[in-house]
Amino acid sequence: MTTPALTLHHNPKSRSAGARALLEALGVDYEVKLVDFAAGETRTPEFLALNPLGKLPTLVHGDAVITEQVAITIYLADRFPAAGLAPAFDDPQRGPYLRWLAFYGACFEPALMDHAFKREPIDPTTSPYRDYDTVIAALIAQLARADYLLGDTLTAADILWGIGLRWTTDFGIVPKDPVIMAYVDRVGAHPAVIRAGELDAAMLPQ
Amino acid sequence: MTTPALTLHHNPKSRSAGARALLEALGVDYEVKLVDFAAGETRTPEFLALNPLGKLPTLVHGDAVITEQVAITIYLADRFPAAGLAPAFDDPQRGPYLRWLAFYGACFEPALMDHAFKREPIDPTTSPYRDYDTVIAALIAQLARADYLLGDTLTAADILWGIGLRWTTDFGIVPKDPVIMAYVDRVGAHPAVIRAGELDAAMLPQ
Repeated sequence: MTTPALTLHHNPKSRSAGARALLEALGVDYEVKLVDFAAGETRTPEFLALNPLGKLPTLVHGDAVITEQVAITIYLADRFPAAGLAPAFDDPQRGPYLRWLAFYGACFEPALMDHAFKREPIDPTTSPYRDYDTVIAALIAQLARADYLLGDTLTAADILWGIGLRWTTDFGIVPKDPVIMAYVDRVGAHPAVIRAGELDAAMLPQ
Repeated sequence: MTTPALTLHHNPKSRSAGARALLEALGVDYEVKLVDFAAGETRTPEFLALNPLGKLPTLVHGDAVITEQVAITIYLADRFPAAGLAPAFDDPQRGPYLRWLAFYGACFEPALMDHAFKREPIDPTTSPYRDYDTVIAALIAQLARADYLLGDTLTAADILWGIGLRWTTDFGIVPKDPVIMAYVDRVGAHPAVIRAGELDAAMLPQ
């Protein structure tokens, strides 16, 4: 049985940079379909049929459509286990791995958005992420424990986080804390992350 | 080898209702530790060492700590596969299952919070979830396709969503659309969801 075709709807200047780097790290064959926002390509009926939110990354694997960075990361790393980028079901690190991935989508991203746009905070007891400072402090405390989120070994979670922290520190939305910057550099030095960056750079207008 | 002890830090009036219902549906042994917010029990050093955000649900499984509803749902349903509540890695439904789970934490919850607190929307091209109306429309379109999110069979994703939609429609944050209400009733009729509700009711002051 052949593996179904894998297509990443992608734009280097979007949230899909991490998905591309993960595909490179997994060493699987995939096709990239460049989606040009400026030309309205996230608002076509064809694209909205895949992802009604009109967002990237959007992954198509055979007949299955997978959206959301966190879902794509978990899905791909489990589906292609040869690269060893996800702890197995019964590995004691499995729960913490999922915890930090879910935290990215449900805590870090909303905290970032609220902070970047200087919005009035929601009452911390009601907010799903408490408050921005607590999210950043929790992240730094975790990263200070080891080279990678879950210890000495890079997982798919680090590819998402390392790339997410690179652009958010570049943009000044996340503080350039030394622990964070050392982690960003460490993940950025991974050959697959470098390769994905080069492939992405080649897609941009010169 | 015995299974490590499973403890849910829980309060019936919190985001942890779904985690308890899932544990009931999986039919596993677990201990519930009632966390009383009003008494400050989410702000003790002991609790903050488990979850620096001071949030529920917080699950402890052996030495592993798992926070975030989405992570807890994925973790438990995979770790206890006998109940058949999660598609396997190579099941074509695996990707869509993870998609709708990640969507809950990264799109639905932030959209809800912004809507409930009447916050000025973020530019839809920048917002991770585009906008509230698109999130609700995407959800209704998916639920209109079959009895459950992924077809004719209930999965762990339905337990999270069904319970989430019950309280949000009760509170008037999500519209009482007939498709949503039929789904809420369908998930609410699952024996494990009923049982968890009864156990939770018995924990509340009479």
